[in-house]
Amino acid sequence: MQYVGPRAADQTLASLIEYGQGPDEFYEKLFTSLEEGQGYQPQHPLLWLNLHGLANIDLLKVVGRRFGLHPLVLEDILNTEQRPKVEVFNGYVFICVRLVSVSDAGEISSEHVSIVLGKNYVLTFQEKPSGTFNQIREGLKSSQSQLRRFGSDYLVYTLLDKLVDRYFLVLEAISERSEDLDDAISSGPNPAQLQEIQALRRTMQYVKRGLWPLREVMNTLQRDEADFFRDETQLYLRDVYDHVVQMIESGEALRDLVNSLQDNYMSLQANRMNIEMRRLTVLTTIFMPLTLIAGIYGMNFEVMPELKWQWGYFMVLGGMAVIGLGLTLYFRAKRWF
Amino acid sequence: MQYVGPRAADQTLASLIEYGQGPDEFYEKLFTSLEEGQGYQPQHPLLWLNLHGLANIDLLKVVGRRFGLHPLVLEDILNTEQRPKVEVFNGYVFICVRLVSVSDAGEISSEHVSIVLGKNYVLTFQEKPSGTFNQIREGLKSSQSQLRRFGSDYLVYTLLDKLVDRYFLVLEAISERSEDLDDAISSGPNPAQLQEIQALRRTMQYVKRGLWPLREVMNTLQRDEADFFRDETQLYLRDVYDHVVQMIESGEALRDLVNSLQDNYMSLQANRMNIEMRRLTVLTTIFMPLTLIAGIYGMNFEVMPELKWQWGYFMVLGGMAVIGLGLTLYFRAKRWF
Amino acid sequence: MQYVGPRAADQTLASLIEYGQGPDEFYEKLFTSLEEGQGYQPQHPLLWLNLHGLANIDLLKVVGRRFGLHPLVLEDILNTEQRPKVEVFNGYVFICVRLVSVSDAGEISSEHVSIVLGKNYVLTFQEKPSGTFNQIREGLKSSQSQLRRFGSDYLVYTLLDKLVDRYFLVLEAISERSEDLDDAISSGPNPAQLQEIQALRRTMQYVKRGLWPLREVMNTLQRDEADFFRDETQLYLRDVYDHVVQMIESGEALRDLVNSLQDNYMSLQANRMNIEMRRLTVLTTIFMPLTLIAGIYGMNFEVMPELKWQWGYFMVLGGMAVIGLGLTLYFRAKRWF
Amino acid sequence: MQYVGPRAADQTLASLIEYGQGPDEFYEKLFTSLEEGQGYQPQHPLLWLNLHGLANIDLLKVVGRRFGLHPLVLEDILNTEQRPKVEVFNGYVFICVRLVSVSDAGEISSEHVSIVLGKNYVLTFQEKPSGTFNQIREGLKSSQSQLRRFGSDYLVYTLLDKLVDRYFLVLEAISERSEDLDDAISSGPNPAQLQEIQALRRTMQYVKRGLWPLREVMNTLQRDEADFFRDETQLYLRDVYDHVVQMIESGEALRDLVNSLQDNYMSLQANRMNIEMRRLTVLTTIFMPLTLIAGIYGMNFEVMPELKWQWGYFMVLGGMAVIGLGLTLYFRAKRWF
Amino acid sequence: MQYVGPRAADQTLASLIEYGQGPDEFYEKLFTSLEEGQGYQPQHPLLWLNLHGLANIDLLKVVGRRFGLHPLVLEDILNTEQRPKVEVFNGYVFICVRLVSVSDAGEISSEHVSIVLGKNYVLTFQEKPSGTFNQIREGLKSSQSQLRRFGSDYLVYTLLDKLVDRYFLVLEAISERSEDLDDAISSGPNPAQLQEIQALRRTMQYVKRGLWPLREVMNTLQRDEADFFRDETQLYLRDVYDHVVQMIESGEALRDLVNSLQDNYMSLQANRMNIEMRRLTVLTTIFMPLTLIAGIYGMNFEVMPELKWQWGYFMVLGGMAVIGLGLTLYFRAKRWF
Repeated sequence: MQYVGPRAADQTLASLIEYGQGPDEFYEKLFTSLEEGQGYQPQHPLLWLNLHGLANIDLLKVVGRRFGLHPLVLEDILNTEQRPKVEVFNGYVFICVRLVSVSDAGEISSEHVSIVLGKNYVLTFQEKPSGTFNQIREGLKSSQSQLRRFGSDYLVYTLLDKLVDRYFLVLEAISERSEDLDDAISSGPNPAQLQEIQALRRTMQYVKRGLWPLREVMNTLQRDEADFFRDETQLYLRDVYDHVVQMIESGEALRDLVNSLQDNYMSLQANRMNIEMRRLTVLTTIFMPLTLIAGIYGMNFEVMPELKWQWGYFMVLGGMAVIGLGLTLYFRAKRWF
Repeated sequence: MQYVGPRAADQTLASLIEYGQGPDEFYEKLFTSLEEGQGYQPQHPLLWLNLHGLANIDLLKVVGRRFGLHPLVLEDILNTEQRPKVEVFNGYVFICVRLVSVSDAGEISSEHVSIVLGKNYVLTFQEKPSGTFNQIREGLKSSQSQLRRFGSDYLVYTLLDKLVDRYFLVLEAISERSEDLDDAISSGPNPAQLQEIQALRRTMQYVKRGLWPLREVMNTLQRDEADFFRDETQLYLRDVYDHVVQMIESGEALRDLVNSLQDNYMSLQANRMNIEMRRLTVLTTIFMPLTLIAGIYGMNFEVMPELKWQWGYFMVLGGMAVIGLGLTLYFRAKRWF
Repeated sequence: MQYVGPRAADQTLASLIEYGQGPDEFYEKLFTSLEEGQGYQPQHPLLWLNLHGLANIDLLKVVGRRFGLHPLVLEDILNTEQRPKVEVFNGYVFICVRLVSVSDAGEISSEHVSIVLGKNYVLTFQEKPSGTFNQIREGLKSSQSQLRRFGSDYLVYTLLDKLVDRYFLVLEAISERSEDLDDAISSGPNPAQLQEIQALRRTMQYVKRGLWPLREVMNTLQRDEADFFRDETQLYLRDVYDHVVQMIESGEALRDLVNSLQDNYMSLQANRMNIEMRRLTVLTTIFMPLTLIAGIYGMNFEVMPELKWQWGYFMVLGGMAVIGLGLTLYFRAKRWF
Repeated sequence: MQYVGPRAADQTLASLIEYGQGPDEFYEKLFTSLEEGQGYQPQHPLLWLNLHGLANIDLLKVVGRRFGLHPLVLEDILNTEQRPKVEVFNGYVFICVRLVSVSDAGEISSEHVSIVLGKNYVLTFQEKPSGTFNQIREGLKSSQSQLRRFGSDYLVYTLLDKLVDRYFLVLEAISERSEDLDDAISSGPNPAQLQEIQALRRTMQYVKRGLWPLREVMNTLQRDEADFFRDETQLYLRDVYDHVVQMIESGEALRDLVNSLQDNYMSLQANRMNIEMRRLTVLTTIFMPLTLIAGIYGMNFEVMPELKWQWGYFMVLGGMAVIGLGLTLYFRAKRWF
Repeated sequence: MQYVGPRAADQTLASLIEYGQGPDEFYEKLFTSLEEGQGYQPQHPLLWLNLHGLANIDLLKVVGRRFGLHPLVLEDILNTEQRPKVEVFNGYVFICVRLVSVSDAGEISSEHVSIVLGKNYVLTFQEKPSGTFNQIREGLKSSQSQLRRFGSDYLVYTLLDKLVDRYFLVLEAISERSEDLDDAISSGPNPAQLQEIQALRRTMQYVKRGLWPLREVMNTLQRDEADFFRDETQLYLRDVYDHVVQMIESGEALRDLVNSLQDNYMSLQANRMNIEMRRLTVLTTIFMPLTLIAGIYGMNFEVMPELKWQWGYFMVLGGMAVIGLGLTLYFRAKRWF
C-alpha cells in the first residue's frame, strides 16, 4: 500500500467538525500531529473529518483503524488516479470522485477526492487544501441551516453537489476555447491549430474520465440499497443525478464540436489550396501569351514585314498591354483572384 | 435558489382557469399582483394556473407553498436550462419540457416550460407569454369540448401534444435549410457554406437536446406508476410517444443529411481543384511548344536556311497557328476544358 | 381529425368479402356510396373490408363507429406519414405498415397501409388501389385454400407477408443502382455522381424508415400478449419476422456499400489529380531544357564560336530532338504518362 | 414453396446411416430414387439422413411428411439465402447455418446447410455434396468412437463444430489477402487496389452474414429450453459458442484492418502528390533563372558591354552551369528529390 | 486434442507447492518427469501446482485425470490462442487469461495462462517460465503472509491481480510510443510513419483482445454463483474488476489518440502541399515578368527607341532588379515563404 501521486504537500492536516441539531452543538478543531488525536472523544452526535494531503500514511492508517475502513479503501484513497466509483461496505459507503478546476489561464486540472459516509460520520480525503468546501463549513456553523438540521447523508449530498457543479465551469471553459479556435481556423488555418485541436481532444477525454462515471456513481447512490440516505435526501441526489446527465449531454455535444474543428481545418486548407492554384493558373494565362508574342518578334527571319513598320514596336507593346489588361479584368470580373 | 435566465420580462402574470363538467362551471381570472391572490378560494372542481415570466420569485414561492411543491421543483422551474424530465412526487407529478419555435426568418429558439399535475389541478410555468396555449384556453370555454368532459390529466396531455407538435415545424425548417444549402454547395462550394453547415449542426444539437429526452419523458408518463393518468388518457399519451419517436427518427435522418453536406463540400472542392489543374496543364501544353519554336528561330546561328526563305516567317506563324489550334480542338474534343 | 396526404383520389371504395370454411361460404361486394352500406348485415362467419382512398372521412367515421375503433386509430389511418407500429386495443389490434413499390424506371415510392384485426373481421385501409392484395382475394375464392380453412389471423399474416416481400424487390433495385454507380465511378468520377450518391442515401433512409420499425412490429405481434393469433399462425409470424431481420441486415450492408461509394469517388479523384500533376511535370521537364538551349543560342555575344559553325544549327536542332525524344522515351518507360 | 437457388445439381441423393451403441449397430445406405425408400424401416436406435442437392422437391416433401416437418421448415430448407437461425418445433429443433469454403485461388463461397434434430434422428440438407462430413461418417463406423457412444445431440454438435471451424480458414484467407494488399499499397498505390479493397469489404460482409448470427444460434442451442441436448453435450456447445465469439472478434479486427487500407491508400497518394509537386517546384526553380539570364543577353540594346567581352559567352555559360549545379546540389542535400 | 502454438520449450516442468496456515505447513517440490509424480500424496491442506511449457501432453493428461478436468478444459489449456474466459465446472472453476509483457525494446507480446481453482487446490498452466509468479511464491513461504492465512481463492485473486497489473505497463508503453509518433509527425510527416501508425493500431487490437474480455471474466468471478470465493475475497475481486474497467477506459482513450494520428498526418501533409504550391506560385510570379521584359527587348523591331539609349540596358537591368526584389520583399512581408 503506497501513495500514488506527487509528494508536493508532505504535511497532512486533519480538520474535524462535530455538530448536532442543537444551537450550541458545533465544535471545530484542526489536528496537525498524530499525538493530538490520541484519546480524543467526540461530544456531538455527528462528525465530519476532512484530511488535506495524502502523504502521511501513518495518519491515514490510524483514521482507517478508528473508523474500521477496509485496507482496499485506504488503497483507493491513496491512489490519486482512481476512477470515480461507489462501493458499499458493511457499515459505511465509500465514494471516489474527481474535483476539477480551471485556472485563470484556462488550464484544467483535477484532484482525487474520497468520501466515506457512515451512520453518524463523514470522512473526506483531498490531495491538497482547495477551499472548495469552505462554504459548506460556514453553512454548518449556522444552527438554522438545513445542513445542521439534516443528517450526515445531507452533508454528503452537499459535498457532491459542490463537486459536480465544478464541471459546469470546466465545460464552459472548454466550450469557449473551442469556439475561439473555430474562429481562428475560419480566419486562416495554420498547423499550430492542429496542436490545439489535439490538446482540446485530450482535455475532453480527461474531463470525460472524471464526469462519465459520475452517472453510475449517482445512480448507485440513488438506488441506495443499503439505506444510507433518507428518503428526503434521495430527492436531492436525484437532482444531482440530473445535473450529471445534463453535463454528459453537453460534453457529448462539445466532443462533436471539437471533432468538427479538424474537418473544418481540412476544408479550409483545401479551399486555400484551390485559391493558390487558381492564382497560378491566372498568372500563367496572362504571361504565357505575352511571352510568346515577344518570342515571335524576336525571331530572326529576314522577311518579317511588321519589324520594319514605323509603329510596329509600339503597336505590339500596346497589343500586349491590351491582352494583359483584358485578361486581368476578365479574371477579376469572374472574381478569380 | 435563483432564476437562471434573462430577466427581460420583469413582470410575472398568473392566469387562472377553474372548470368542471357542468355547462356553467368555467371561471377565468388574471392575477397581476400577489395581493389579489390572497385568500382566494377556487369554486369549481378543476383548476389550471398558468404563470408567464419567472422573474417574480416571491410569487413562485407563494404558489409553491400553496400547492406543496418541493424546493427542488421550484429550483427546476427557475432553471431555464433544465433538461426535459419527469419526476413523481408525493401527490403530484412534475414535467419539464422545452417549447421550440421558428421565427419568420427561420431562427430556431426554445423556451423552458414546466408542468405540475396534481389530483385536481394543473400548474404551468413559462418564461414568457407565447400564445401557444390560447387555443386550449378557448377549447376549455366550450362546455361540449373533450377538455371539459375529461379531467386534468387530459389537459396535461393536450398541453404536451401542442408542445411536441411544435417540433414538426422546427424539423421541417431545418430540413429546408439543409436542402437549400445542399443545392448551393452543388452549384459552387465556398467557405461561407462551411460556417452554415457548422451552424446547422449546432441547431440540430440544440433541437436534439430538447427532443431526445422527450422519449423518456413520454415513456415514464405512459408507464405512470403513480396513477396520475386515467386509462383513457393513457392511449392519448401513447400517441404523443409515437409522435416523439417518429420525430427522433426524422431528426437522425436529418443529422445524417447535415453530416453528408461537409463530405459533399469536400468532394466538390476536390473536383474544382482537378478542373483548375487540368486547365493549367492544357495551357502549358499549348503554349510551351509555341514558345520553343519562337525561341529556336530567335537563335543567332549564321547558317539557318529557313530564316532566308521568302515565306519562312509566315510558314512558322502558320505552323504555330496550326499547332495551337490543333491542340485546342483536341482538348476541347476530349472535353478537358 | 383530418386526412394528411395528397387528395388525388377523391373517391373512397369499400370492397367487402365475407367468407367461412364451407364451400359456399364466400360473398364479395363493392360499396361505392355510404347509402349502400346502411343496414347491411354480414351472412358468413368471417369478414374482410378493404378501403381504397382515404379522402372520404365520413365513410371512415361510419366504419369506425360500426367496428368500435378509437378516434386515435382513425387519426392514424388518415395520417399517411405514420410510422409503422402495432397497438393493441380492447377487442382488436391495430397495425400500421408502409407498402413499398418500385416503378419500371426504378423510382421507389411507398404508401401507408393500416390493418385492423378483430376476433372475426379484418379491416384494411390503403391510400390508393394498388392491386397488391388481388392474389389474396383470388386465394379466398377457392374453398380448398389455407386462407379459407384458417381464421382471420391467418389472413392478416398473408397480408403482412405480401407487404414484407415487397421490400426484397426494393432492396434489390437499390443494390443494382449502387452497383451501376460504383462501376460508373470507377470508370471516371464526375460531380453528377455525387448527386446520385446523395439520392441513394436518401432512398436508403426512406426505405429504412419503413423497414426498421417492422422488426418491432413483427416482434410485438409474435409475442401477442392479447391472443389474437392462434399458435399455428404464430409460426408463420415468426417466419415473417425472420424475413424482416434478414432484410434489415441486407439493408445495413447496402448502407455500408453506399457510404463507401463516396470514399471511392474521393480516392479516384485524388488519383486523377496525381495523373494530371505528373503530366504537367513531364511536360515541363521536357520543354524547359529545350527552351533554355534556344535561349542560350539567342544571346547576342560577339564571340559565340558555335554560331559560326557550318552545321551548328542542325547540331543544336538534333541535340534538342535527342533530349526531347530521350526524356519522352524515359518517362514512357517509367509509365509516367 | 419452391427451391430458391441455382439448379446445377438436378439430382438429390439421400445417404442414410443407422447406428447404435452396440459394436454391430451400424448400417449405411444410399438412396437414389424415391421408390427405394418406400416401406423402408430402420433397424437401429439412431438415424442420420443426409440429403445432397435440393432440386428434388418431391423427395423433400416425402422426407418432411415422414418426420413430421412443418411446411415452413421445408420452405427454409429450400431457401438457400436463408439467414442462420434456430427454431424449436414440437418434437424437433431446426437449425440453419452457412457452410463456407475457400477455393485454392482464395475465392470464398458459402452454401446453405439445414440440420433437423429429433429425439432419435438427425436430418441434414446440403446444396451439393461437399465431403465436409465424410470424416464424421468414418468416425461413426468405429464402435469405440464418442459419436457412437453418445446420442444424436452429440452428432449435431460434431456437425456444428465442423461447420464453425471452417470459418477459421476463411478468416485466415481474408487476413492474408488484406495483408498482401497492405504491402502492395505501401509499395505504390494504384486504382486497381481500390477495387480490391472494395472486394475485400464485400467478402467481409458476406462472411459476416454467415458468422454473426451463429452467436445467437449457439446461444439459443446452449440455453436449450426444450431439452434436446444432454448436460454433457451442453459443455461442448459452450465450446463451439466460444469459438464463434472468438471468430467474431477476429472478424471485427479484420474489418478495422480493411477499413484502414483505404485510409492508407489516400495518405500514400497524398504523399506521392507532394513528391510530384516538389519535383515540379525544383525543376522550375532551377530552369527559370537560367532562362532569364539567356533572355537578358538576348536583348538587343546597342550598349551592352558584356556582349563585347572576349570571354563573355563562356563566363555566362559557366555562370549558368554554376547556378544550375549549385541549386541541384542544394536540393539534393535537402533531400528534396 | 493437440497443442496449438510454437514448440520452443519441449520440456514441461511442474512446480508443486503445498501449504497451510500453520508455521511449518509449507513444502515445495519440482517435478521434471512423469515418474516422480506417481503415487505422490500431498501432506498439507492446500496445494498449488504450476506447469511451465505445454508440449508434454501426456503429463497434462495425467494432471487432468488426477484433478478430474473435462477434456474440453485440457483442449483450452493447450490452445494458446484461446480468448480469456471463465467457465464453471462441477467442483472447479476454469479461468483463461493472457499475460502481456513489454520487452526492453518496447515490443509487446502475450502468453496464454490457464488457472483452475478447486476447493483446496490451484492449478496454473503457462506457455513458458516467465518468473511472473516468483514474488507470490516468496510470499507463500512466509507464514505471516495473508496468502498463507487465506485460502486458495485468495491465491487466485493474487495471481489475477499480478496478471492484470501487467496491462498498466503495456498501455503505458503504447501511450509513450504514440506520443513520440505524434511529435515526429508534427515535426515532419513521412510515409514510414504511416506504417508505424498501422503497427500501433494492430498492437492496440492485440492488447484489446486480451484486456476487453477480462471485464466479463472478472464480472463472472465476482458474481461467483458457484461460491468458489469467500466474501472477504470478493471485495478483492471487485478491486481487480475496477482496475480492468479503468484500463479499458484508458485503452479506449488511447485508441482515439492513435486514430487521430492519421488525421494529423493527413492535415500536416495537406499543409506542406499548400506551402509547396505557394512557393511555386511565388517563384512564377517573380520570374515571369522579368522573362517577359527580357523577351520584349529581344524583339527585332527596327524602331525600338530604348535600344539606342546609352543607359537603356542598365536601366532595364535596374528595373528588373527593382521588380524582382520588390516582389520578393512583398511576399516575405506577407510571410508567404
